[in-house]
Amino acid sequence: MKRIGIADTTFARVDMGTVAIKELQSLATGFQIMRYTVPGVKDLPVACKKLFEEQSCDIVMALGMPGSKPIDKQCAHEASTGLITVQLLCTKHIIEVFVHEDEAHSNKELAWLAEQRTREHARNVVDLLFHPQHLTLHAGQGLREGFKDAGPVE
Amino acid sequence: MKRIGIADTTFARVDMGTVAIKELQSLATGFQIMRYTVPGVKDLPVACKKLFEEQSCDIVMALGMPGSKPIDKQCAHEASTGLITVQLLCTKHIIEVFVHEDEAHSNKELAWLAEQRTREHARNVVDLLFHPQHLTLHAGQGLREGFKDAGPVE
Amino acid sequence: MKRIGIADTTFARVDMGTVAIKELQSLATGFQIMRYTVPGVKDLPVACKKLFEEQSCDIVMALGMPGSKPIDKQCAHEASTGLITVQLLCTKHIIEVFVHEDEAHSNKELAWLAEQRTREHARNVVDLLFHPQHLTLHAGQGLREGFKDAGPVE
Amino acid sequence: MKRIGIADTTFARVDMGTVAIKELQSLATGFQIMRYTVPGVKDLPVACKKLFEEQSCDIVMALGMPGSKPIDKQCAHEASTGLITVQLLCTKHIIEVFVHEDEAHSNKELAWLAEQRTREHARNVVDLLFHPQHLTLHAGQGLREGFKDAGPVE
Amino acid sequence: MKRIGIADTTFARVDMGTVAIKELQSLATGFQIMRYTVPGVKDLPVACKKLFEEQSCDIVMALGMPGSKPIDKQCAHEASTGLITVQLLCTKHIIEVFVHEDEAHSNKELAWLAEQRTREHARNVVDLLFHPQHLTLHAGQGLREGFKDAGPVE
Repeated sequence: MKRIGIADTTFARVDMGTVAIKELQSLATGFQIMRYTVPGVKDLPVACKKLFEEQSCDIVMALGMPGSKPIDKQCAHEASTGLITVQLLCTKHIIEVFVHEDEAHSNKELAWLAEQRTREHARNVVDLLFHPQHLTLHAGQGLREGFKDAGPVE
Repeated sequence: MKRIGIADTTFARVDMGTVAIKELQSLATGFQIMRYTVPGVKDLPVACKKLFEEQSCDIVMALGMPGSKPIDKQCAHEASTGLITVQLLCTKHIIEVFVHEDEAHSNKELAWLAEQRTREHARNVVDLLFHPQHLTLHAGQGLREGFKDAGPVE
Repeated sequence: MKRIGIADTTFARVDMGTVAIKELQSLATGFQIMRYTVPGVKDLPVACKKLFEEQSCDIVMALGMPGSKPIDKQCAHEASTGLITVQLLCTKHIIEVFVHEDEAHSNKELAWLAEQRTREHARNVVDLLFHPQHLTLHAGQGLREGFKDAGPVE
Repeated sequence: MKRIGIADTTFARVDMGTVAIKELQSLATGFQIMRYTVPGVKDLPVACKKLFEEQSCDIVMALGMPGSKPIDKQCAHEASTGLITVQLLCTKHIIEVFVHEDEAHSNKELAWLAEQRTREHARNVVDLLFHPQHLTLHAGQGLREGFKDAGPVE
Repeated sequence: MKRIGIADTTFARVDMGTVAIKELQSLATGFQIMRYTVPGVKDLPVACKKLFEEQSCDIVMALGMPGSKPIDKQCAHEASTGLITVQLLCTKHIIEVFVHEDEAHSNKELAWLAEQRTREHARNVVDLLFHPQHLTLHAGQGLREGFKDAGPVE
């Protein structure tokens, strides 16, 4: 039985954790989900490490919604750097799903984007865990999570 | 008996350490507090590591007040990066409470912000240590520490 | 029998992995290729670590095509930093082949650049693995992968 | 008998190492000083690690004077990041004393600033080593090393 | 018998490796030189680690010539960060000799600068290895490698 960790934040303005759990459960069976909520994105790296080491997760989704100010961009950069470090310490994947508030032009679009990106990355998680060959089939296809795919260069 | 570390600085212009200690003591019992003061935010990472390793703390609050100049932003970035590294080395949470001097428009607001953010993060510390499920109840709610909550996207 | 890892992404708009494999096979024999596709460049560091540790690779090519927005540049920087860390943890080379979308002025040039840079770096991989003295013969010669060589300063 | 390391550079335009040694000797007894000079600030991190591991130092002062060009700022950032890493690897304090050439408006002020900041940080070193409670007495007091204290927010 | 590593690149437009070797041989005896050439500056960190661990070097010179575009500056930053990490992992010095193409105003000056800076840093290598006290004699003297010394502040 595989274990998928869901690390999310109270800072985010959309409940991306619940979106992720529902999507994962609709896509596959044969895994358990462990959820761990922290205040903000800078708390996600150690939360992911705890999900790997204390909860025996095989892969983790790190969900966050950085704000639009320069300090928020800085925090997101520090968090992302930490998430890569955790992956290297544990030799396991963390799929980072960050939605920057200024990627959307309205609250409605922001909610849509957060849900859509989370759902599409949930499929990446399932592929990495159960069907890694699916990803190779789409190598170089210009896939995007959330907004429209860029597609391959013709 | 849990141990909460308080790492603070002589550089800060508000005694955030004392604010944190008072708030923690008003919120819960069943823990000891170990305080460690260093000159500036760049000294906080190793102070936190010492609180974990030499004082057996279970969680640490890292309190700082970076200045408004570019070099101060750089220092804050280096400190934050170090604080994430410590968390990954020790697999324990550090709740970073940084108040940037230029977040406030007056000394009065700066003092208010430093106290308010410290108090709200003290609640996060208590939740992480004793009631992690409280955080999941507020996942995706757009919580902010200090200024007004952004709230969930409707 | 040496093993060369190919780590690539579904985000890239050119199938650089297949280009790399074909070029490697045209250049040398005596090695096996292990391919691992992940969603984006920030997933490459742990993919490379897995190729080294779980697939016994001796060297890895990390292929990616970061977008042109500031956030894409940030992601590329975080990925590159992680790729260097993996090399230091494993004491093995990763040849990073990143093509930034804004390096090219048309889709046609982008496709050409991605293929050309991948091919030229495949030769570096073969040299590092089998003929390291070839690289010393070209030390300080202003070589470039993709676009025209800068050449030595006269 | 405690050991204080002094790591300094030939790049600096003021002999901050000698200033530090004199100030430390005027402030306290009961310690030995080990001095190690390197070319520039990017050589300081490993110099500090050697002072901890090969010279058994208990704390180190890292003294440097970065230039005013963007590349110098970059070097200082890389050096500072490395100094924090050393502290975390050794679980010991390094007090970084960097004076940026463009902090001063004249050579005279630069010399004064380098000496004054070095002296004030020497007192921090003595406090961290022998009187950590002195620092807590000044927590949140807006202390500055070199220029005038900012003081506490009223 | 000491061992000095020379890590250089095919990207550089001047054969800094040969300049370094000649200068070292003119300055001292009692050491062997191990040379390792890689494609670009981001390949230097692991090359240096290999020189330390697989070739038993006691110190390494890392020679590179980053280009003038923003992406080149980014690469140089990533390489420098990696070089500091290697030093901390191995507790040995790497003397980084980077010449940025835009430091010079002509090809002639670029060639001169690359040679001069390499030669002056070769002396630093010999001093660190055999005469560390020479560096302390010049502490705070405003030394520069390549261009004219800034000199001490009067």
